[in-house]
Amino acid sequence: MPHDSEATGPDGINPLTVEVTRGGIVESRHRGAAAIVDARGHIQAAWGDIQRPVFPRSAIKAIQALPLVETGAADAFGFGARELAIACASHNGEALHVETVTGMLTAVGLDESALECGGHWPYSEADAHALAVQGRAPDQRHNNCSGKHAGMLALARHLGVETKGYTDQRHPVQQRVMGTMEMLTGLDLGRAAVGIDGCSVPTWAIPLENLAFAFARLCTGEDLPDDRAEAARRLIAACFREPFMVAGTDRFCTDFMTATAPRVFVKTGAEGVFCAAVPEYGLGVALKCDDGAGRAAEVMLVNILRTVGVLDDVPDETVRRFIEIGIENRRGTAVGTIRPAHGWLAF
Amino acid sequence: MPHDSEATGPDGINPLTVEVTRGGIVESRHRGAAAIVDARGHIQAAWGDIQRPVFPRSAIKAIQALPLVETGAADAFGFGARELAIACASHNGEALHVETVTGMLTAVGLDESALECGGHWPYSEADAHALAVQGRAPDQRHNNCSGKHAGMLALARHLGVETKGYTDQRHPVQQRVMGTMEMLTGLDLGRAAVGIDGCSVPTWAIPLENLAFAFARLCTGEDLPDDRAEAARRLIAACFREPFMVAGTDRFCTDFMTATAPRVFVKTGAEGVFCAAVPEYGLGVALKCDDGAGRAAEVMLVNILRTVGVLDDVPDETVRRFIEIGIENRRGTAVGTIRPAHGWLAF
Repeated sequence: MPHDSEATGPDGINPLTVEVTRGGIVESRHRGAAAIVDARGHIQAAWGDIQRPVFPRSAIKAIQALPLVETGAADAFGFGARELAIACASHNGEALHVETVTGMLTAVGLDESALECGGHWPYSEADAHALAVQGRAPDQRHNNCSGKHAGMLALARHLGVETKGYTDQRHPVQQRVMGTMEMLTGLDLGRAAVGIDGCSVPTWAIPLENLAFAFARLCTGEDLPDDRAEAARRLIAACFREPFMVAGTDRFCTDFMTATAPRVFVKTGAEGVFCAAVPEYGLGVALKCDDGAGRAAEVMLVNILRTVGVLDDVPDETVRRFIEIGIENRRGTAVGTIRPAHGWLAF
Repeated sequence: MPHDSEATGPDGINPLTVEVTRGGIVESRHRGAAAIVDARGHIQAAWGDIQRPVFPRSAIKAIQALPLVETGAADAFGFGARELAIACASHNGEALHVETVTGMLTAVGLDESALECGGHWPYSEADAHALAVQGRAPDQRHNNCSGKHAGMLALARHLGVETKGYTDQRHPVQQRVMGTMEMLTGLDLGRAAVGIDGCSVPTWAIPLENLAFAFARLCTGEDLPDDRAEAARRLIAACFREPFMVAGTDRFCTDFMTATAPRVFVKTGAEGVFCAAVPEYGLGVALKCDDGAGRAAEVMLVNILRTVGVLDDVPDETVRRFIEIGIENRRGTAVGTIRPAHGWLAF
């Protein structure tokens, strides 16, 4: 692995730059920062401010799911690869996703009403319209986070605690998740800013450096208790085996893991966050697009993985599919591209 | 009007800053540039790089609609305020929008198949689902630009030219629009970068300074031929009278013009562009959020209008509704805010 490190530019402007082109010129531009860290905590590559705390949002669902597995809850309720993968997912609300979550809730002896994530129309337009055609409104199982929530309910049941209020920061489930996050990141999160995520669970602000460290430990198990290391191994293996469950049709996480698997675990979070783990190299990756744009964060993630050599064995045309994103107009005419900026680092 | 001018910061970073907060910290951040110019071309206020060409996209629909009115085409086909307003619109595809466009096409002796904008599901989720429930797919009338396109077809008919191919840059309709843009902006667009818009018409890249100048002329008529000045007056009056036609339910342009009317004409464009005109002060405004985010461009626009005193007569609570945007999670809990950055100009 080459070493690479770029500080922020003047006034804290981050260097990773993705541009959106049209008519031969740059129409819009996104900035970001990222860290690649090994399981000993050594920074292997860094771009921009990796010490500012960022909310990881859904990018750390695989860490939030560790207690579900390491406590034996997942095995007690008979959860297999699909269930473990959807516990780590921001899914599209497609039929298989909803069916899997329904099965998890049934296994736990609960139903949709026990979820506290709130409902929203499926990300998948086809599935949203299919619901509408049936005269149905979405319920909480269609929420992209419902797999994580079903896993948290399973954990609550297995721990023998009240399921109601499991999204509250003081509830044993969230306290357990917090402790797990603290061990993996090496931080005292009692001192961290804490926000409420879109699905109502707490999200702690963590520097990219520590998030990347956490994902290096997740994929190597280094310095983790045996049960936790084994839980991490099983969760990543489940996502590699069932990438559809992690997101769905035409979604980056599913498509990228499918195209490169089993090589890089990737997980998106709201507001332009990505976390990734590369078991083969023992590396963790964390990235934030400053303005929160997912379209740019995806390109940044793949391009930093490419830059440091993680994708050297992946065919060029496969990599290009994820870093040169065509923009079409409403009639399918090619009108522009989303891509790493010319020169990539804009300083 | 106070004078105000801020250059770009180091490395061309634009100063207008909108932040997205969560859990008491800044989660994401947007930058932008803007110009406020009078009808003589004097810059009244400027922030950041206002000379870099940007694609105005849909923000200049009111200018694209000038030939429709000044040639007499609109009158020949009996278009009233609703039709003029929707010719300037990026609408939601709600029932009244589609009905109005259908009426325009019928008046012109054409139907939906003559449109060349392409179809997409209505921006309005309720209307998209209503279509799906009826087992229907969207057609080109549901495209947010269909009013502009119906107006362009009316112009082609009135000019006695072939309607087919009216979206092509070489077609008389687009050449006429180009000439109108050149007069209002004072630029030779033959030298400008030209892209293809989402709805297939050409979009010429124009510096914010010139876009703002164009909107000052649009709302004052200064130095314009009488027919063109009168067409501009009628179009802005139509949008002030029928703000719903310009966008629709829960949309910024409609809500802001309704809350402040008749004071500021505002029009959004894709990729974080806004143009505005303030007839009362004879000012034009043009703004671009660097990363293309509409959520930030709206806040930037209202805050620069506030900063220069244009909204002094608007109640504080009304202004605040447009510059302190609450973010709720899926269960309706307040979790964050979109707002001008602390200190606003980030340098």
